[in-house]
Amino acid sequence: MRMYDIILKKRNGGRLSDEEIRFFVQGYTKGEIPDYQASALMMAIYFNGMTSGETASLTTAMATSGDMLDLSGISGIKVDKHSTGGVGDKTSLALGPMVAACGVPVAKMSGRGLGHTGGTIDKLESFPGFNTSLTVDKFIENVNRVGIAIMGQTADLAPADKKLYALRDVTATVDNMSLIASSIMSKKLAAGADAIVLDVKTGSGAFMKTEEDARALAAEMVEIGRRAGRNTIAVISDMDQPLGYAVGNALEVKEAIETLKGNGPEDFTRLCLTLGSCMLLAGEKARTREEAEEKLKAVIRDGSALKKLAGFVEAQGGDGRAVYDTSLLPAASFTLPVKASEDGYVQRMACDEIGVCSLILGGGRETKESAVDLSVGIVLQKKAGDRVSRGDTLALIHANDSQKAQEASKRCLSAFVIGKEIPGKRPLIRTVLGA
Amino acid sequence: MRMYDIILKKRNGGRLSDEEIRFFVQGYTKGEIPDYQASALMMAIYFNGMTSGETASLTTAMATSGDMLDLSGISGIKVDKHSTGGVGDKTSLALGPMVAACGVPVAKMSGRGLGHTGGTIDKLESFPGFNTSLTVDKFIENVNRVGIAIMGQTADLAPADKKLYALRDVTATVDNMSLIASSIMSKKLAAGADAIVLDVKTGSGAFMKTEEDARALAAEMVEIGRRAGRNTIAVISDMDQPLGYAVGNALEVKEAIETLKGNGPEDFTRLCLTLGSCMLLAGEKARTREEAEEKLKAVIRDGSALKKLAGFVEAQGGDGRAVYDTSLLPAASFTLPVKASEDGYVQRMACDEIGVCSLILGGGRETKESAVDLSVGIVLQKKAGDRVSRGDTLALIHANDSQKAQEASKRCLSAFVIGKEIPGKRPLIRTVLGA
Repeated sequence: MRMYDIILKKRNGGRLSDEEIRFFVQGYTKGEIPDYQASALMMAIYFNGMTSGETASLTTAMATSGDMLDLSGISGIKVDKHSTGGVGDKTSLALGPMVAACGVPVAKMSGRGLGHTGGTIDKLESFPGFNTSLTVDKFIENVNRVGIAIMGQTADLAPADKKLYALRDVTATVDNMSLIASSIMSKKLAAGADAIVLDVKTGSGAFMKTEEDARALAAEMVEIGRRAGRNTIAVISDMDQPLGYAVGNALEVKEAIETLKGNGPEDFTRLCLTLGSCMLLAGEKARTREEAEEKLKAVIRDGSALKKLAGFVEAQGGDGRAVYDTSLLPAASFTLPVKASEDGYVQRMACDEIGVCSLILGGGRETKESAVDLSVGIVLQKKAGDRVSRGDTLALIHANDSQKAQEASKRCLSAFVIGKEIPGKRPLIRTVLGA
Repeated sequence: MRMYDIILKKRNGGRLSDEEIRFFVQGYTKGEIPDYQASALMMAIYFNGMTSGETASLTTAMATSGDMLDLSGISGIKVDKHSTGGVGDKTSLALGPMVAACGVPVAKMSGRGLGHTGGTIDKLESFPGFNTSLTVDKFIENVNRVGIAIMGQTADLAPADKKLYALRDVTATVDNMSLIASSIMSKKLAAGADAIVLDVKTGSGAFMKTEEDARALAAEMVEIGRRAGRNTIAVISDMDQPLGYAVGNALEVKEAIETLKGNGPEDFTRLCLTLGSCMLLAGEKARTREEAEEKLKAVIRDGSALKKLAGFVEAQGGDGRAVYDTSLLPAASFTLPVKASEDGYVQRMACDEIGVCSLILGGGRETKESAVDLSVGIVLQKKAGDRVSRGDTLALIHANDSQKAQEASKRCLSAFVIGKEIPGKRPLIRTVLGA
């Protein structure tokens, strides 16, 4: 078998066999197939696409290119959750304890990554003492004992995807549905869960700007999961403005805690209930989504979800008291209000720009080496559809540096689009596929 | 300017600016742009094509990526000739002296290359003592004094093309008309001639299998020449069977000599007259192709073309007597006839396969390091349309090794397709573009 013939076949519109795809992925991972042949193949795939069968083959080949996490030591159906990412997406922080409190074992391996804020792991480190460097044995023991554990990504999961994504990133071959879907799903398959719930975001703050694209991506991923024998459900949700009000690491932790107390923002609570109901369904802890939602609301009401968070934090060495007393979490040294300069309604906001504010304040990572300031961020006071008067506070900047605060403040103000008309409402949950 | 954006633009169907194309070619030649980005761009070009303007920009950028030969020291209009290559193509050997005898200065830089036989330079080395290692000064002096000189490619002509072609060759991005045309023309522009006559081959022995493709390639090249201010004429000629009867280095030299004596094969003579008339037209040595053909026939008739060959060979240190006594040329130690095994008409022959016979005998180069045996080859006795009886000699294998001769003989026999019907005739000259 020759890589040249594989490129030629795909270039000419042919369908690659499972064997050919494995040959490519294995050879590329080992460095036997050079980058220039891989990028030519990626571009040919960009133009000629892949069938569901080819996409599934690519996903499996990438998933098995490194370690495959063995979660068989955890009793019950393990359900993993994945979000395609957005601004103010603190879902895992609230959702994990909620579903764990309903009896679904949550065993999550998480990275730090680049972004407007840190990743879930960074956010959790807002709890003083919280430690994500667990051994796999300790991780599994914690899930069995506490019901939930999150560890840093130590295993070499899907190295083929890592290498190929880095190449696609510099050769303009990222935005192909099959390639995006297989990249996400290869890591999920390697992470060992029995079932997967996907939160596919759409809107100005999401990778998929249009709902059509989000649906196509969701459908590809559900099909990959089906072919791989993993029950997969996808929720398409809005990301045209930040989720909830808080954007920033410790600020998001506080908002997640409020949500577990039943005082969370409406949109964020709704998303947690929707994703959670899919997880309970997949984890066979409810027969219908309605029944699942009732159970999730119950664990919020009776305080068991909040207690689960505290137990989880303590099991990983963190200060669980911070769950009940958020003054123990990192806090910025001052706040700066962003004030409206005109009357009207918030028509929409440039969601990505709010994320950039967090980055400017030091809340995220621009390079792998960046240090994340857990205390800073933005707390919105107004969102799309809200009526504002000149001088009203649109958002509060939480900062430790006045120059950065000024810059973020300017940027934040220009992200708000204010107009005279009452804007139409974008529904948060667009659709659920695979449930 | 970023290479990423250039790839993205072409991938999205955009038109690259002259500046963007120069940025790519210069950066790639210097090694600042990596192979994996170049191959992604080539694949995007394969799918989305290039306009005539982009193709011209690419050609010029590649032509100026290394040395540009300065032929201004040669008086008169310098006309270069290029063939897209085929089996038994000894055209330069006869055509050069013919047009030189008519007053068109022939200044040709030639490579050795890989192929079924050696290149023009190898073939000329059949003349004992012939030397192609000339300095540029000596080369120009010879053209001015003798009317014709051919030197080995010492200058670094179009290094960008060399590097890019090697990459395309292993990434399935060779067969795109714009890329093929710019590759050929970049070398021609760098080689410094004022006008260019192209022999674009079509048929089973050619790179362009169909006449439609050959016409498209010819049109691209004529347009590149026009935009670069070089008078460019393209002849589309048949290569469904070898040109003439001889395939092999010294054997082809003999056939070229016979042609200069007026005893050449009909097809080969016709091609030389057609290409030659285009060269005389471009060189302003005739006003019409008819007038040009008469002049070319005259220099054959009066022996001045043959004499020009002898003078040219002697000027480069070779034994000019071999022009008049071909027994001085290298000869194989024995011949082996290939006999017909059935009655009928030669329907056609697998042209490439006849070329492979030459390669098997040692007449060509499989790798850059291969030594070429100038004496071996095949001399056809029958061609398409000829009637044959069982036992007739179809071809004579000239060899120095009996095992190789046997292998070539078998291969040669199977290249002949013999059938009962009288086959239709494929015209040799299909069309002339740009004249």
